[in-house]
Amino acid sequence: MQIILLSGGSGKRLWPLSNSTRSKQFLQLLQDPNGKKESMVQRVVRQIGESSLSASVTIATSASQRDFIETQLGSTVDVVTEPERRETFPAIALSASYLASQKGCSRDEIVVVMPCDTYTEARYFDTIGHMTSLVEQGVANLVLMGVHPTHASADFGYVVPATSEAPSPYLMVERFTEKPTEKKAQELIQQGAYWNGGVFAFRLGYMMDLIAQYTPVATFAELRERYGDLPKISFDYEVAEKAASMAVVPFDGKWKDLGDWNALVRELPARAMGKVVLGSDVEGTTVINELSLPVVCDGVKNVVVAAGHDGILVCSRESSEYIKQYVDPIHMRPMFEERRWGTYRVLDDTRYADGSHSLTKSITLHPGKYISYQIHHHRTEVWTFVEGEGIFVLDGTARRVKAGDTVIIPVEHYHSIKALTELTFIEVQMGNPLIEEDIERFDWDWEKVMD
Amino acid sequence: MQIILLSGGSGKRLWPLSNSTRSKQFLQLLQDPNGKKESMVQRVVRQIGESSLSASVTIATSASQRDFIETQLGSTVDVVTEPERRETFPAIALSASYLASQKGCSRDEIVVVMPCDTYTEARYFDTIGHMTSLVEQGVANLVLMGVHPTHASADFGYVVPATSEAPSPYLMVERFTEKPTEKKAQELIQQGAYWNGGVFAFRLGYMMDLIAQYTPVATFAELRERYGDLPKISFDYEVAEKAASMAVVPFDGKWKDLGDWNALVRELPARAMGKVVLGSDVEGTTVINELSLPVVCDGVKNVVVAAGHDGILVCSRESSEYIKQYVDPIHMRPMFEERRWGTYRVLDDTRYADGSHSLTKSITLHPGKYISYQIHHHRTEVWTFVEGEGIFVLDGTARRVKAGDTVIIPVEHYHSIKALTELTFIEVQMGNPLIEEDIERFDWDWEKVMD
Repeated sequence: MQIILLSGGSGKRLWPLSNSTRSKQFLQLLQDPNGKKESMVQRVVRQIGESSLSASVTIATSASQRDFIETQLGSTVDVVTEPERRETFPAIALSASYLASQKGCSRDEIVVVMPCDTYTEARYFDTIGHMTSLVEQGVANLVLMGVHPTHASADFGYVVPATSEAPSPYLMVERFTEKPTEKKAQELIQQGAYWNGGVFAFRLGYMMDLIAQYTPVATFAELRERYGDLPKISFDYEVAEKAASMAVVPFDGKWKDLGDWNALVRELPARAMGKVVLGSDVEGTTVINELSLPVVCDGVKNVVVAAGHDGILVCSRESSEYIKQYVDPIHMRPMFEERRWGTYRVLDDTRYADGSHSLTKSITLHPGKYISYQIHHHRTEVWTFVEGEGIFVLDGTARRVKAGDTVIIPVEHYHSIKALTELTFIEVQMGNPLIEEDIERFDWDWEKVMD
Repeated sequence: MQIILLSGGSGKRLWPLSNSTRSKQFLQLLQDPNGKKESMVQRVVRQIGESSLSASVTIATSASQRDFIETQLGSTVDVVTEPERRETFPAIALSASYLASQKGCSRDEIVVVMPCDTYTEARYFDTIGHMTSLVEQGVANLVLMGVHPTHASADFGYVVPATSEAPSPYLMVERFTEKPTEKKAQELIQQGAYWNGGVFAFRLGYMMDLIAQYTPVATFAELRERYGDLPKISFDYEVAEKAASMAVVPFDGKWKDLGDWNALVRELPARAMGKVVLGSDVEGTTVINELSLPVVCDGVKNVVVAAGHDGILVCSRESSEYIKQYVDPIHMRPMFEERRWGTYRVLDDTRYADGSHSLTKSITLHPGKYISYQIHHHRTEVWTFVEGEGIFVLDGTARRVKAGDTVIIPVEHYHSIKALTELTFIEVQMGNPLIEEDIERFDWDWEKVMD
């Protein structure tokens, strides 16, 4: 059995901790049963492993998220990246093609598609097990999870079953209704409708036949090449709403989208995370601090404080659902990034009165990792190593460097660095501030150097 | 006429903007009549200049505040620094000695001592004018200002006049009561008592005679040398409470100590200062942001948010009076300092797992300014110039440097830098983290270099 986890989004509703590269599912704010920090995607993958599903997981995502996934999940999952951002139908189609042509899955293999950031409990995965059994039994081509609605929300899609009988293990689906008004939602619930939980089970062949309607290509590599052939449409519209026969399996357990601060803080293990001093007169308040500066908080009630490298949020829990409007106009480069080779923090980014511009970063590479061999056409860099040891390459010549060393990289000089131990350097960039993407990458054979 | 402004304190009640070097009177949060940012001490000095007092101002302070005073007030005031922190009596005595032996004031010169951070209005300075007239007329040896009490505060000293008659231009003082209980304060107010405003007028000779009781020294230089001869006691206890004849002049105008956030925010010109986005649902709230990160604030009521290089405060206005208890245990080096030569910001201060330690600063020197010729015994420094031009000296050899240049300063090498234009460099220090004060200063003749 195969699971395709959908990892998308670059939302700002958990600003300043989430940004254009760090989507909410990568924030390590939750806690696993051993008390270790855990992100939403790590939690879902752990829960899959703990369930009885014995599934192999493939994550469908964008290229910008690959480094996060590798850092947080290592080689426990496969990753399929979209060549460009389209929609859930093409993303799922591409992953299905990967299963068929790269992982060698047969047309009979059962595939489950689900979001990577649902906050749920073990029974959810039992329900997925029931769904796959129904596909095996041939009850329907497509089986989906119907979440028991707790209120007449206008934020969800609704699945209306053909009968409102007391739920048998499954019900056949009559129709879908996308995000109705609250009044209409109330009526749907009275008719026995469920929320569409975005979890679908089907046989791989079912999806491959749908792909064949749009493009004749046979392999994953070809489909990735001709990704634009697939329509920019959601899986719900393209597949679920058109399915000839579809069953829904109800689920009435814990099911949450921790998509804004108000929802997230209810599930956090602590009221204060990071360097925080809470006064005695604080109520219903959560303070999350990723900075090295201390946060002192007192005398407030039902407030969320989040301090990160991109900014500081101080907001009532209630208002925190609506911060997008205030955050959207803020244009700032990401101040902290996780990459496959390590992390970097922007320490300073200043344009001076005399027209010059400097950018100072602290860059950490993990042991054995390296950055690409590259040149810059418009900036010089000065690196001062402050932790560990590595191998630095300048214009084809490699040499050992260690904490205390400084290297100067003039414009148009080829360079790279590989960490032998955990390696940190402070980088001061000087250059043309108008050129954001001043980098050209080349191949470099590290094997040759290590001999 | 001479005014001695007392500039002390290193309070944490306006944390994180005030710290051990930046006392509250130097925070430039107020606004002058032209709309320019102004600190408390700048405001008082401006008000003195605008009054009819035609007084010369001497600031009695500690060495650590000299750079702030020079930066904010230039050469409009004289500065007398205590060789060690003692109390208000020795500090005032030292300044009096400075007036006598350095500024050539006679024993008849009238001296007014006052705090540098009272938030008040023009009439306050008119009242000081009345006080000096009374000293001239010989009404009393010591004339002080009595502030009309607005409530039975336990935080002030009280001055009890000999009669509670409707105030004539002045009243003779019967006694002092230091910080009574609120109940006792209520009784004192009914007896016609005033708050002791800390403003005293006397002839210079009066003070010189008091000094002579403790030490036989004649000159300012000698007194500074033997500063320890003077008792560690407040002016109120040593002088005011012992004075043979003393008059009080009432003042009932605006008189505030902007000593905590709750008091300060009432007088600020704006609800948001710095990079701040206020949402539509914010009430009675002030956000002050000195960082380059944006602050977004919404849905809160009567809250103070202050973000500075030393930390972040989120606090109800009411609770902000009691933050000291939470701030005191935070031990951190100052992350931003103003010096006579310019400013510096700490960008990063990290101790690594492998035992190494690095400190990264952005340092700006103003044109013509320089830092002392110095060596470090335990750290290397790498400076990358990112703005402007200057002259860098290494082991006695001077050379021009400009934005784009990098210099490496090994342990035990003599160095200095002078700015020709506004000059900024990023400094990366590597060294022994256990040695905080690793600096030895030497003389260097810049005149020689400039020829």
